[in-house]
Amino acid sequence: MTTPLNIGMIGYGFMGRAHTNGYKRVGDFFPELERRPVLKAACARNKENIQAFADQWGYESIETDWKALVARDDIDAVDICVPNNLHKEIALACAEAGKMILCEKPIAMNTAEGEEMCQAVEKAGVVNTVWYNYRRVPAVTLAKQIIDSGKLGRIFHYRANFLQDWTIADDLPQGGEALWRLDVDAAGSGVTGDLLAHCIDTAIWLNGSVTDVSAMTETFIKERVHQETGQKQKVGIDDACAFLCHFENGSLGLFESTRYARGHKALYTLEINGENASLRWDLHDLHRLEMFDHADEGLTRGWKSIHVTDGDHPYMDKWWVPGLQIGYEHSFVHHVADFLKSLETGEPCHPTFRDALETQKVCDAVLSSAAERKWETVV
Amino acid sequence: MTTPLNIGMIGYGFMGRAHTNGYKRVGDFFPELERRPVLKAACARNKENIQAFADQWGYESIETDWKALVARDDIDAVDICVPNNLHKEIALACAEAGKMILCEKPIAMNTAEGEEMCQAVEKAGVVNTVWYNYRRVPAVTLAKQIIDSGKLGRIFHYRANFLQDWTIADDLPQGGEALWRLDVDAAGSGVTGDLLAHCIDTAIWLNGSVTDVSAMTETFIKERVHQETGQKQKVGIDDACAFLCHFENGSLGLFESTRYARGHKALYTLEINGENASLRWDLHDLHRLEMFDHADEGLTRGWKSIHVTDGDHPYMDKWWVPGLQIGYEHSFVHHVADFLKSLETGEPCHPTFRDALETQKVCDAVLSSAAERKWETVV
Amino acid sequence: MTTPLNIGMIGYGFMGRAHTNGYKRVGDFFPELERRPVLKAACARNKENIQAFADQWGYESIETDWKALVARDDIDAVDICVPNNLHKEIALACAEAGKMILCEKPIAMNTAEGEEMCQAVEKAGVVNTVWYNYRRVPAVTLAKQIIDSGKLGRIFHYRANFLQDWTIADDLPQGGEALWRLDVDAAGSGVTGDLLAHCIDTAIWLNGSVTDVSAMTETFIKERVHQETGQKQKVGIDDACAFLCHFENGSLGLFESTRYARGHKALYTLEINGENASLRWDLHDLHRLEMFDHADEGLTRGWKSIHVTDGDHPYMDKWWVPGLQIGYEHSFVHHVADFLKSLETGEPCHPTFRDALETQKVCDAVLSSAAERKWETVV
Amino acid sequence: MTTPLNIGMIGYGFMGRAHTNGYKRVGDFFPELERRPVLKAACARNKENIQAFADQWGYESIETDWKALVARDDIDAVDICVPNNLHKEIALACAEAGKMILCEKPIAMNTAEGEEMCQAVEKAGVVNTVWYNYRRVPAVTLAKQIIDSGKLGRIFHYRANFLQDWTIADDLPQGGEALWRLDVDAAGSGVTGDLLAHCIDTAIWLNGSVTDVSAMTETFIKERVHQETGQKQKVGIDDACAFLCHFENGSLGLFESTRYARGHKALYTLEINGENASLRWDLHDLHRLEMFDHADEGLTRGWKSIHVTDGDHPYMDKWWVPGLQIGYEHSFVHHVADFLKSLETGEPCHPTFRDALETQKVCDAVLSSAAERKWETVV
Repeated sequence: MTTPLNIGMIGYGFMGRAHTNGYKRVGDFFPELERRPVLKAACARNKENIQAFADQWGYESIETDWKALVARDDIDAVDICVPNNLHKEIALACAEAGKMILCEKPIAMNTAEGEEMCQAVEKAGVVNTVWYNYRRVPAVTLAKQIIDSGKLGRIFHYRANFLQDWTIADDLPQGGEALWRLDVDAAGSGVTGDLLAHCIDTAIWLNGSVTDVSAMTETFIKERVHQETGQKQKVGIDDACAFLCHFENGSLGLFESTRYARGHKALYTLEINGENASLRWDLHDLHRLEMFDHADEGLTRGWKSIHVTDGDHPYMDKWWVPGLQIGYEHSFVHHVADFLKSLETGEPCHPTFRDALETQKVCDAVLSSAAERKWETVV
Repeated sequence: MTTPLNIGMIGYGFMGRAHTNGYKRVGDFFPELERRPVLKAACARNKENIQAFADQWGYESIETDWKALVARDDIDAVDICVPNNLHKEIALACAEAGKMILCEKPIAMNTAEGEEMCQAVEKAGVVNTVWYNYRRVPAVTLAKQIIDSGKLGRIFHYRANFLQDWTIADDLPQGGEALWRLDVDAAGSGVTGDLLAHCIDTAIWLNGSVTDVSAMTETFIKERVHQETGQKQKVGIDDACAFLCHFENGSLGLFESTRYARGHKALYTLEINGENASLRWDLHDLHRLEMFDHADEGLTRGWKSIHVTDGDHPYMDKWWVPGLQIGYEHSFVHHVADFLKSLETGEPCHPTFRDALETQKVCDAVLSSAAERKWETVV
Repeated sequence: MTTPLNIGMIGYGFMGRAHTNGYKRVGDFFPELERRPVLKAACARNKENIQAFADQWGYESIETDWKALVARDDIDAVDICVPNNLHKEIALACAEAGKMILCEKPIAMNTAEGEEMCQAVEKAGVVNTVWYNYRRVPAVTLAKQIIDSGKLGRIFHYRANFLQDWTIADDLPQGGEALWRLDVDAAGSGVTGDLLAHCIDTAIWLNGSVTDVSAMTETFIKERVHQETGQKQKVGIDDACAFLCHFENGSLGLFESTRYARGHKALYTLEINGENASLRWDLHDLHRLEMFDHADEGLTRGWKSIHVTDGDHPYMDKWWVPGLQIGYEHSFVHHVADFLKSLETGEPCHPTFRDALETQKVCDAVLSSAAERKWETVV
Repeated sequence: MTTPLNIGMIGYGFMGRAHTNGYKRVGDFFPELERRPVLKAACARNKENIQAFADQWGYESIETDWKALVARDDIDAVDICVPNNLHKEIALACAEAGKMILCEKPIAMNTAEGEEMCQAVEKAGVVNTVWYNYRRVPAVTLAKQIIDSGKLGRIFHYRANFLQDWTIADDLPQGGEALWRLDVDAAGSGVTGDLLAHCIDTAIWLNGSVTDVSAMTETFIKERVHQETGQKQKVGIDDACAFLCHFENGSLGLFESTRYARGHKALYTLEINGENASLRWDLHDLHRLEMFDHADEGLTRGWKSIHVTDGDHPYMDKWWVPGLQIGYEHSFVHHVADFLKSLETGEPCHPTFRDALETQKVCDAVLSSAAERKWETVV
């Protein structure tokens, strides 16, 4: 016998689809779970659009005012899938209403907002998690297991980047529903919050805290037509951002993100170098993990390409047979599964708001460092 | 308004899961379709098992006798997902009952059975298709588009192999529910019907008919315990099979399959060399297609690795955004989508039984050639 | 103190350059060798051309009649670097004259010629070797070491191909100095003797004898202008050749070669699958060897890419530092070094004429099998 | 008729061998050159060692005092192949003596020394070049040609790293002949001058001047036994260095180097992203260049792997045939060839001392930025 978990989804964009798919598929592949998501309500201001979304995905009802959704008794958990500038207000209301919260990343526009949100959910005691989904790509989870086993020894280096090329055209507008990520008022920042935040979350998870940063940002296209005003307006986001940092464990970090790297669609790569072994991964072949193990016999040592599709690989016993890869969307199914499991065990489902706040602090330090052209301590 | 298509599933193994997942997801990602699969009934002899399967996946009812399932009025389409030795009898019954048929590959134990099945469905006029799913991996579909555009020019070579390593241990038994593929009475053949059939289906689709073959097969482990008898019994299947062939278009073919290639989990690779361009693909990175285009400027000519995740790539407008890969299971979703579309248009959903029979003929010629140690004409 | 080894080179084509480079460099990198090649004389019918070659490379003298070269007292070793149809006659004369012989591969036009050559050198007791240079690419030599260590266990499969694309244009002529490889009278065969012979030599070295073969050949362009007659003439060579075979150790072999595989310049690849481990290599990245070792820990098992540039890799202590690759030409330097070492030890320098004859026998069986469309035993 | 160029080599380490090999081979492969290097004299303090080196490589004579070498009338050109702390004094003496100079990189211990050296050679009017050899790896030279053609459009990003792992063991000593690169007194810096200098030279060549930098350095192992004193001494070099920068053309740069990246032997990688196309290259597969060209047809766009071995690729008409790779050492042969050509044309052989000084300035700014933890302008 399973128990329903009634989901209220706010938003219906790319992430709204990805999360919804996670809710719908989790029961088929994780049948042992006691609770099962039920698509109770979807919410957005545009009634026609949200109705179409609800119809396509099977939400039982719609709302056009998120406050109405949060107020509903039949909603257990709210999924905040709207632009960053709306996260805080909704999250505070959810906490107030005692709803569980699954919030899209980054947690907020900045650390101050994030801190307020953390305090609200902690005070209210509501279950909370943030959708840094890459932790649950099996190859990345495997990396975590290997690192936690101590196999790598002392860590010297961590590097990550997230390279895209979709905003190179200067006639691409900013703002509006599809392009709010280019509008600083909605997004808070550019690639830093959108892409580097992913890299930072994984980095902290795998390699511990970041202590200080030196960053640079750039906005290559200075003005773009805003879709809401129809006017050319200054572009306020960072098109590219790179930073140096130190980790608390003494290792050095190097991060970069851009939407101007021609040829890269969504190339998130990471590499960690330890005394005894190294690992690397990239999102364009997300089903593989590469490992170099110095303990291997000398003559035949080399980088191993692990095809992470075996039954003993993280999450992979749930899917197909060895050799048959899963894809991007599965990371969300895994997140939902882990969230549901956390409801059974009472353990937090990481990253929690508090975990995500640590990433936000690094993002803020990065942006401030770039603005001030100086090293910033992460506080 | 959509119309239901009531599915009766016979079988609940690996393929049963894969097909069912296809039925359940198609509506979310292909909302324009008029007909929607409904999981009406699942059938297997073992009541407990089929009930568990039905519960997990959401089938409305179960049957323990496939004849009962086929006889039900509320079933529109039957999915034949059982060992090969049962395909024919069920298919004939379905045709007789006027049910649509989605049959797992290979179509049958041999050409004679396949021919009987073709005649039955054609006579009955029932819609039919065979689950050669790799045609609908977007990168393979893209290969088909490129070839059909004439870009490659005259074709000289086609080569494919399907390499696995899961049966190397000599204490692996044969037969029974999980290992019927190792039992010649259930499977008809070993890698030829299981793996090479996939390679041949794609090859015929991409490069036309095969005219003659010279093959060799091998059974490396001669005896294995049979799970049903508990006795060591002769292994009747081919553990490995390779063949040379000619295509009707004058090109040369080279095919190989084995379950004894240490290090390869499910490495289906194909390559086609034309006068002007070449293509290659492999299942371990199924989201990529490689292309060499001699028309490219000479100094910078090279093999291109196409990350088949853009909106204009086959099927990819239905999924996520560029750079984010899908996986193995999506090929079945696409097959279901195309099947449903075919119901709207009245066009056949390829490969039909008749198409699959052509593959069966090549398989038979291959096995006969290996047995006789001589070239065989494909008739 | 070193002792000179006076070299007489017959021929000045691509291989003449490669061998000469081997002779000139060996002393710099293998200073421990007692004997050092001295470029005593170069020989070819065209006086102007051979003089230019001698000038460029530093040969002390020239000859225009190979018989004169063989007759010279100041020549210790003769390098036979001419088209295949001349190998036998020159080799017999060298044996008669008591000269050491370094003969370009394949050993001869056919097995009968090769047998005659073997008997001549064995009777005369002259040192002999055949330039199957790929054995001495460090990654291939490393493969041999690993296989000889028993690491792979029982062998199931061996496959190799050699794919090129340089003869696709139908206005390419045949014959003459540059294109004698396309003229059956000079070359004896097409890709079989030119390319497959390499694959077969390595295969026998790594995996033992071939017992029987089933082959197919094709000549895609049926007529080409012959450079010596200026006339369109029938093309007598095989443009492509593929074959199945069995090895004496019970493993299955699959070989293919062509000059019509668009996109491949000189892609010689090989792979061997054993019970416990597999290896693969390709000439386009000749400094790497890939290995899959089933003994590796399960969770992190994968194909390793070994960058064969460490000091403990075969031959690599002679060159640079780890990470810095060497290239194609070094295989010839290594062959010369091993040849010189063999003079010190009195051991044969493999492959000898007798070793190369085994490859020739397989080639002959392949061509005969293709002509007769039936399995041929290698005798 | 060729004219000799008498070389005086100071030093006999790894670079001494690489340069000498360049001098010895250039005539064989670039026969059109009018001047030919003659190995006139080799010089080092240790008589036994330098005699052995001279014997191995064929230097006609030896010196044990570099001043004596520089004073010899029969020396045309001096190759400075000694630790960095000796470059300046020798170079000044060479200039004074009117000798051509081929100086190992980095040009000097710091910008001040380098400036003095530039002024000396310019005042004396002696031909000079610095051995930044990677410019003459054919794939890198091809990158330069493509960039100069304007194909990339506006440049947004440049990134490079040079990763090694050979100093991870903490019992590795510093100093002495083999390990002077770990001794700050001999080397001036660690990875910055040894490895990043290469990255910077190529970057400036491909992408223009660097204007400002923000760097961090780290010394992971704080003390190592010094081979000359036998005592544990503070390690003065940087084990790792990373920096952010801006280029004059408005693009962003990211550079990193370390000797603590487990699994990387000598992995120099570079990537440049332009509006219309991107290029990347790495030293572990130095015969390949990767290119993404947005002008390619959309459906089949992807990263191309160019196997830089064709006759129309830079320098490659001198070597073998398409598909057959050359290696690391060939970059030095090419440098010698270009140097000899420059003597014919009277054009400088880049990078000259003046060019190399620009790299030195960036290195100095990097080290200063790291020390001061602030952005530094490159002056």
